[in-house]
Amino acid sequence: MKEIRYFFVPDAGKVTELPQEEAKHALKVLRLTSGDEINLMDGEGNFYRAEVSLASSKHCLYQILETFPQQPAWKGKVHLAIAPTKMMDRIEWMAEKATEIGFDELSFLSAKFSERKTIRVDRMDKIVVSAVKQSHKAWKPVVNEMIPFKEFIAQPRTGKKYICHCYEEIDKVDLFAELQKPFDDEGDVTILVGPEGDFSIEEVQLALQHGYVSVSLGTSRLRTETAGLMAVAMANLARRI
Amino acid sequence: MKEIRYFFVPDAGKVTELPQEEAKHALKVLRLTSGDEINLMDGEGNFYRAEVSLASSKHCLYQILETFPQQPAWKGKVHLAIAPTKMMDRIEWMAEKATEIGFDELSFLSAKFSERKTIRVDRMDKIVVSAVKQSHKAWKPVVNEMIPFKEFIAQPRTGKKYICHCYEEIDKVDLFAELQKPFDDEGDVTILVGPEGDFSIEEVQLALQHGYVSVSLGTSRLRTETAGLMAVAMANLARRI
Repeated sequence: MKEIRYFFVPDAGKVTELPQEEAKHALKVLRLTSGDEINLMDGEGNFYRAEVSLASSKHCLYQILETFPQQPAWKGKVHLAIAPTKMMDRIEWMAEKATEIGFDELSFLSAKFSERKTIRVDRMDKIVVSAVKQSHKAWKPVVNEMIPFKEFIAQPRTGKKYICHCYEEIDKVDLFAELQKPFDDEGDVTILVGPEGDFSIEEVQLALQHGYVSVSLGTSRLRTETAGLMAVAMANLARRI
Repeated sequence: MKEIRYFFVPDAGKVTELPQEEAKHALKVLRLTSGDEINLMDGEGNFYRAEVSLASSKHCLYQILETFPQQPAWKGKVHLAIAPTKMMDRIEWMAEKATEIGFDELSFLSAKFSERKTIRVDRMDKIVVSAVKQSHKAWKPVVNEMIPFKEFIAQPRTGKKYICHCYEEIDKVDLFAELQKPFDDEGDVTILVGPEGDFSIEEVQLALQHGYVSVSLGTSRLRTETAGLMAVAMANLARRI
């Protein structure tokens, strides 16, 4: 199959030049010149067919020929808030795979038992952008800075809110079954996944007080990054259009 | 949470000694001695509580105290046959994650557009065993040697057979919708996933002639390893007990 290359250009419909990194690739690797056709995605629901109008050593200007607004592939917004793993490569592949499968927002939580207290959001965003391009997604998931768990759960959210955990002493419902129930609003979902050592029991209880529903991902014992990916896969499969 | 360490011992109910690698870990790292309690899994549906009966410098013998036969967590056998990716790390993480989520058999296919023509099954099996232990699975997925695509599809299979591909000119049904339909037999499923360049159109047609159903994983454009994992996740979610 012929590979169609997409360039990621935020506000592609308004600006007329490829961002620096994309321009470098277009000019130095693909050696595009004036008159060549390119495909753009703005990460906000639109694909574009465009033509290179000027290619200098560092700048690649384009003119849009056609705009293709896309229809969402799933209902509502899927927001995963996860305490990142100690090993960066594990959380990075999760971000890549979740983007391929399809979700809308990724937040990082600093929880009581978190082994990782900082994260480079710019690096994570690059991985997400790369997966958006590779999997031809019209929407780019938003990647947020890491914040304390308590701060996150106190923030207002639209739609349903779930917290995944492994405590047997706290009643849980099955997340996939919950997600398949009909929604009466826009259908946004926020799902929290804890660190390697799980959330603390106090954190789970605090989330419940803030309206989060206590859920299980099933009988399998999953690593943090696998739990995050399964939560996204469940939301995506349950809410497909 | 306290970590309960499991040792993987094929035929644990019949033998009375930990395999070499496991014994090394028990003796050199955990420094277990006679009388210590250990947990075993045989990969065929049983957990065991056992006691170290003799710990020498190289051998760790045990006596089984109690056997815990497990109930399967999903209906039927889930068999993924995939053309491995060029990069080993991508297919390795898929094997790890699919094991965590839960499936029964992993086969490797050599297809027309395969960029990888060989695979080290012993290495892949080690990854699977490690994930089985980490995620406390009673069953270990079987890992098979790589065989040519044409040979695989000609082999007899129980249950339903599906081939995932991206050709628009061949009618496809949605895999997840198919998997959710009631099954009239044991409910075994075999799912084929192609290499980076997809199966060839002739391979897809040949599979259809052998009774495989042409399926799509959805509108997302997935990498080979992500497609394999989503196929496993779909089968697991659709067939949960």
